Amino acid sequence: MIFAVILAGGTGSRMGSTDMPKQFLEIKGRPVLNHTVEKFLPNPKFEKIIVLSPKAWIGHTKEIIRKYTGTSDRIAVIEGGSTRNETIMNAVAYIDEHYGLDDDTVIVTHDSVRPFVTHRIIEENIDAALKYGACDTVIPATDTIVEGCDDKITSIPDRRRMYQGQTPQSFKAKLLRDTYLSLSDEERDILTDAAKILVIKGMDVRLVQGETFNIKITYPYDLRIARSLLEDEEAK
Amino acid sequence: MIFAVILAGGTGSRMGSTDMPKQFLEIKGRPVLNHTVEKFLPNPKFEKIIVLSPKAWIGHTKEIIRKYTGTSDRIAVIEGGSTRNETIMNAVAYIDEHYGLDDDTVIVTHDSVRPFVTHRIIEENIDAALKYGACDTVIPATDTIVEGCDDKITSIPDRRRMYQGQTPQSFKAKLLRDTYLSLSDEERDILTDAAKILVIKGMDVRLVQGETFNIKITYPYDLRIARSLLEDEEAK
Repeated sequence: MIFAVILAGGTGSRMGSTDMPKQFLEIKGRPVLNHTVEKFLPNPKFEKIIVLSPKAWIGHTKEIIRKYTGTSDRIAVIEGGSTRNETIMNAVAYIDEHYGLDDDTVIVTHDSVRPFVTHRIIEENIDAALKYGACDTVIPATDTIVEGCDDKITSIPDRRRMYQGQTPQSFKAKLLRDTYLSLSDEERDILTDAAKILVIKGMDVRLVQGETFNIKITYPYDLRIARSLLEDEEAK
Repeated sequence: MIFAVILAGGTGSRMGSTDMPKQFLEIKGRPVLNHTVEKFLPNPKFEKIIVLSPKAWIGHTKEIIRKYTGTSDRIAVIEGGSTRNETIMNAVAYIDEHYGLDDDTVIVTHDSVRPFVTHRIIEENIDAALKYGACDTVIPATDTIVEGCDDKITSIPDRRRMYQGQTPQSFKAKLLRDTYLSLSDEERDILTDAAKILVIKGMDVRLVQGETFNIKITYPYDLRIARSLLEDEEAK
């Protein structure tokens, strides 16, 4: 069974003046979260779309899904954890409780604030996770990547090997959970990314090709881009 | 003496349908290049603003500067080289020929397609180059950076140490040229960036804080962002 895991746990502190988490900001009259959920809902491969929300926003999240997307027993809204990886683990626990986990249970984890993910990216994620156990959606780095420390450059790695991580990141759920549980506290502290759970244990994570326009709405000016990208989508 | 070196050598192959290099595309009725040049021209510290252009576009570049920015003997348009670093070396040769190079001659090299550079960034570049010999303008990486090879992740470096390179990159011109000339062919082959000329020789390159909006117009959708950023600028 395959599950979409929509990560809406962020508090949106980078958005500046607004206190509302970014996934609730509207583009074209509907919250970003709805646009994102609706990229997964039409795909019949997903048993359930699990939306992880900060506790205080669960009611609001359910309400906007009902209002703008419609009632569906294929959508569940549950509470996120204290970190991104704890949030993913809450989703895995939910799946385990309601469906049981087997070796081929796959989760496609995706940022709620990346509404421009495509059917092609989602399908390639499912295929790669089933075949290889884990994958990460990336695009080649457009900027030069610089590694720095104390106001100085420490290295400029070869750009041809550098990618910018997007989402989805997809995993066999049991593999991810068991590996996460095997990490030491020190190992967990350096995690900033779910794919890294496997990478620091030397396991393979495949690359799936993302899209430049599969942006994350992080800063206010991203919203403006998002609005004009959506105009393009609708014009098609 | 301090020189602005505006790099307009790209052929724009990433822009898709258009054959015109990106610096000539218009935002708000004027080419991107003019917006960029006009960020440097008002600063009296610059002896000259040297614009490097592909040979075939030198006439057009001169024409748009005359038409939209105005005639100024502080602007020179000269031919770029076959690579980014060769282009910078052409600028250094021009300075050497017309002014002579001393140890404190500074070049502030900047992408012609980054029209949103600020006075603050330019001033900090000049200061850091004079004081430390070299600097690079960067912002903290917003995306997770992934290092990959053969369709697999090889590492996910600690994001807190990762930056996205912007421009300006500023240098003591003589230091940069002499170091560049000291490189082996193998060393030159791996250069994708002017700052790396010094980094691979173990020299210090300071970090100057850029701005999220100091974007490079690379893809068609960047133009759309650029147009709306410019509306903001004009509203101020």
